[in-house]
Amino acid sequence: MAKYTIGVDFGTLSGRALLVNAQTGEELADATLEYPHAVMDEALPCGKKLAPDWALEHPQDYLDVFAYTIPEVLKKSGVSAEDVIGVGIDFTACTLLPVKADGTPLCFLEQYKENPHAYIKLWKHHAAQDKANRLNEIAAERGEDWLARYGGKISSEWMFPKIWQTLEEAPEVYEEADFFIEAADWVIWQLTGVQTRNSCTAGYKAMWHKQKGYPSKEFFKALDPRLENVVEDKLNCPISSLGSKAGEICEKAAALTGLKTGTAVAVANVDAHVTVPAVKITEPGKILAIMGTSTCHILLGTEEHTVPGMCGVVEDGVYPGFFGYEAGQSCVGDHFAWFVENCCPPEYYKAAEAEGLNIHQYLTKKAEQYKVGESGLLALDWWNGNRSVLVDVDLTGMMLGMTLQTKPEEIYRALIEATAYGTRKIIETFTANGVPVNEFYASGGISQKNPMAMQIYADILKLPIRIGGTTQGPALGSAIFGAVAAGKDAGGYDTVFDAAKVMGKLRDTVYTPIPENAAVYDKLYAEYSTLHDYFGRGDNDVMKRLKEIKKQQSN
Amino acid sequence: MAKYTIGVDFGTLSGRALLVNAQTGEELADATLEYPHAVMDEALPCGKKLAPDWALEHPQDYLDVFAYTIPEVLKKSGVSAEDVIGVGIDFTACTLLPVKADGTPLCFLEQYKENPHAYIKLWKHHAAQDKANRLNEIAAERGEDWLARYGGKISSEWMFPKIWQTLEEAPEVYEEADFFIEAADWVIWQLTGVQTRNSCTAGYKAMWHKQKGYPSKEFFKALDPRLENVVEDKLNCPISSLGSKAGEICEKAAALTGLKTGTAVAVANVDAHVTVPAVKITEPGKILAIMGTSTCHILLGTEEHTVPGMCGVVEDGVYPGFFGYEAGQSCVGDHFAWFVENCCPPEYYKAAEAEGLNIHQYLTKKAEQYKVGESGLLALDWWNGNRSVLVDVDLTGMMLGMTLQTKPEEIYRALIEATAYGTRKIIETFTANGVPVNEFYASGGISQKNPMAMQIYADILKLPIRIGGTTQGPALGSAIFGAVAAGKDAGGYDTVFDAAKVMGKLRDTVYTPIPENAAVYDKLYAEYSTLHDYFGRGDNDVMKRLKEIKKQQSN
Repeated sequence: MAKYTIGVDFGTLSGRALLVNAQTGEELADATLEYPHAVMDEALPCGKKLAPDWALEHPQDYLDVFAYTIPEVLKKSGVSAEDVIGVGIDFTACTLLPVKADGTPLCFLEQYKENPHAYIKLWKHHAAQDKANRLNEIAAERGEDWLARYGGKISSEWMFPKIWQTLEEAPEVYEEADFFIEAADWVIWQLTGVQTRNSCTAGYKAMWHKQKGYPSKEFFKALDPRLENVVEDKLNCPISSLGSKAGEICEKAAALTGLKTGTAVAVANVDAHVTVPAVKITEPGKILAIMGTSTCHILLGTEEHTVPGMCGVVEDGVYPGFFGYEAGQSCVGDHFAWFVENCCPPEYYKAAEAEGLNIHQYLTKKAEQYKVGESGLLALDWWNGNRSVLVDVDLTGMMLGMTLQTKPEEIYRALIEATAYGTRKIIETFTANGVPVNEFYASGGISQKNPMAMQIYADILKLPIRIGGTTQGPALGSAIFGAVAAGKDAGGYDTVFDAAKVMGKLRDTVYTPIPENAAVYDKLYAEYSTLHDYFGRGDNDVMKRLKEIKKQQSN
Repeated sequence: MAKYTIGVDFGTLSGRALLVNAQTGEELADATLEYPHAVMDEALPCGKKLAPDWALEHPQDYLDVFAYTIPEVLKKSGVSAEDVIGVGIDFTACTLLPVKADGTPLCFLEQYKENPHAYIKLWKHHAAQDKANRLNEIAAERGEDWLARYGGKISSEWMFPKIWQTLEEAPEVYEEADFFIEAADWVIWQLTGVQTRNSCTAGYKAMWHKQKGYPSKEFFKALDPRLENVVEDKLNCPISSLGSKAGEICEKAAALTGLKTGTAVAVANVDAHVTVPAVKITEPGKILAIMGTSTCHILLGTEEHTVPGMCGVVEDGVYPGFFGYEAGQSCVGDHFAWFVENCCPPEYYKAAEAEGLNIHQYLTKKAEQYKVGESGLLALDWWNGNRSVLVDVDLTGMMLGMTLQTKPEEIYRALIEATAYGTRKIIETFTANGVPVNEFYASGGISQKNPMAMQIYADILKLPIRIGGTTQGPALGSAIFGAVAAGKDAGGYDTVFDAAKVMGKLRDTVYTPIPENAAVYDKLYAEYSTLHDYFGRGDNDVMKRLKEIKKQQSN
């Protein structure tokens, strides 16, 4: 009798359920719900305006996702809820909300409906930047040892800047909240009726360490005396390792989703990290890049190393028993989107339309005619700063080599190449710091849609590249963790490694470096590296000075 | 009784005559003829194919210009040929042809019709680059003192590389030619029946010096023993100073043009240099920029200084009695044209059309909303190499500061600013080397059409900017020299200084630096200078290395 699991992937704008055969990995049905409130970055539902850099979500939307998508995939697939053995979810992070002791979001309470701090601060809520800056200063001054695990800098997107902003701007919300909790963990709470917290968001977004726990009371006190007991007062819940079971579908959740009570529910996960088993990675040395508007890199290691300029290293942060390393490039697909929106002439759009291609396909078709180095162009991929290895949001884009003969497709290709050089820089930094990389796995839109880009990556990285076998990487990953939560006896698996081998998927295509291309790219990468260090490591801080002038002149 | 002069401006694609009132400078009529053969860069009239980098013209076209445009301006204006007291011409340079002793172009002879070397090598004929390279090497090895006058490098566009190419590839043409002559001087020969040569092209394009003459026989012998006597064999004609009279309209020319025999004809001139009197410049300290696709800068000095990286310094090269300094930027309007052709999205074209603006006007309208430095962008204006002060065709464009919010108009503005920084670099180099500049004059399309660009120039240069009062700068300048050739007694002038004061024209508008803009631009220019030296003076020769790779990969 076939058994099934469901993975639910909560993205920035929608949630998607995927129903998967646990024995074969076959994807039987999926269903998506766009969040009714979408991202609230201008006003609350009551009409109250939000300041710039705010980005909120509404927790009701996540419940609506469960209520619509799970019954829908059951219906579409014809699978009985009896045969669904497990559920897993993944979420954006840090996406944080204040709740009461029973899990009720503060924004559900009448008296807080008009208070923006009672809502969910989405990962890309950037209004706590001043808190992040202050936090980084204080951590550096105090020589906090955890800082090195995060490349020396905490992002304003992470948990404590968001909590601190709430305390400062809405102390009544801080006071009223019994917990601040990741939306990832909150939706699991809604499914199981029990609060759990996952080691992935705790580790990558809340500076939690498996042995050392959260930062010290003294540190939080140094931020603000009212934060001294923030951990015991507001985060008081043990951390569960990824791959473990959070609980079982409770009666309320059964009523909401149509699943049976008692169905296993996995500990929550993060959209990037959950993709690792979906591409069958089960061991160190294989780096996964989830390539979309930005790229997130996940890599397993057997030891904890401090790798300068990375986003984080977390024990059990990806798989139990391994150290999960995360790195990122803040602008990948966004470079190409910027280019086609701002720098691509009408003739190209017309020609693309005439050939029945979208503009990216058309530019790619033209760009792939060029040999390596034939454009004479070189770019630094910093249109949105550098996340790893320089960890500097104030860096900006650079391109050189333009002549009067330079064509749009050459610039487009140079931008693709620049992101690949940036990836090589990350991989070399891992390798140089004791975390070896010998294979590259790619998931996400670009990896699926642009073979030229993937060949360029192979040639520049000088590594074979494997491509994930589904367009639903995160949801499949969540379904895999659902199967692990169910366990072997129920028709699932005892470990995520066993589950990944069966349910994970790779395409047959492998992109292999072409030696003559790689040889030329080695030369170009050497030039990239020189400029990377010149502009990025303090030889010439022109980008920062220009940003400073820009800021002054924009007022 | 009003007296008139005619200036004829021979451009790259057409010739234009302008009839001017010699007492007032009033422009009465103009007429243009597109050259029937245009630029021959693919094939000869007989169909014979040309190699890449060739660019030829046909001398018959110039005669056609005289035959059509001069009668036409007489007719249009209703001015009698009796009242035309003088004619002047200006030409592109070095635009060179081999002729017989009587001035007959070799390409007019049946036996040479199919020999490309018998035609006119246009200024932008670039097929003698290897000769120029070799010539520069030998001159440097020999420590030729004239090399410093030309910024240390001779261009392949100049006279001797072109002659040498002819000798090497078509020795029969070299042998048959009694003279190699600038087209400028050849058309004057056609008008007067007498060969003269002007000090401007001789000085700027043929390394001639008023006191020292041409380079030595030893030097030419070192190039090729057959060139030892090139000067006495092929260039044997005295050099006449600008501002002097070449002769008078001969019978043949009278028949061709409808002018009276005996009408004064000025010594030939070059299109850029001839514009100086057209904007009323009569003294040192005022630099003229003729701003078009590229920019040519002309400046008068009272002493001969070696200014590193300039195009040349020539006694009597602009006005008799002064040292004329020339500098250049090889890409000015071409930057903006490249941008609108290759980097401007469809929405901008649509919006421009909807507002009844051309794309440059539309981009300018949007760009002028920005404060100085607000874009955060900085560019190096080297899309077509650097003519002055680095004298390096292998440099390429650079831009930095781009973010995902960067808009097309910001890039457009950054390109304008880059060309202004390049101009400031030239002016500072003149000033630092004993040739002071305290006022900036602009002529040519951009100066007339783009007030934003001119204000940016004023703010960056921190100099007041005056704009030429005619759209026909070179033709007006030629008409002024025609009036000087005629002399005061005939209704003209004894000196070009007197003529310029009356016939030259300036707009009323003066662009004055805005101190708060200039202060910010000072900071940006400091950044430009750092990058200019970093990429241009050997700290990081990445642009050259990329070009080398590009060359290898293009084969």
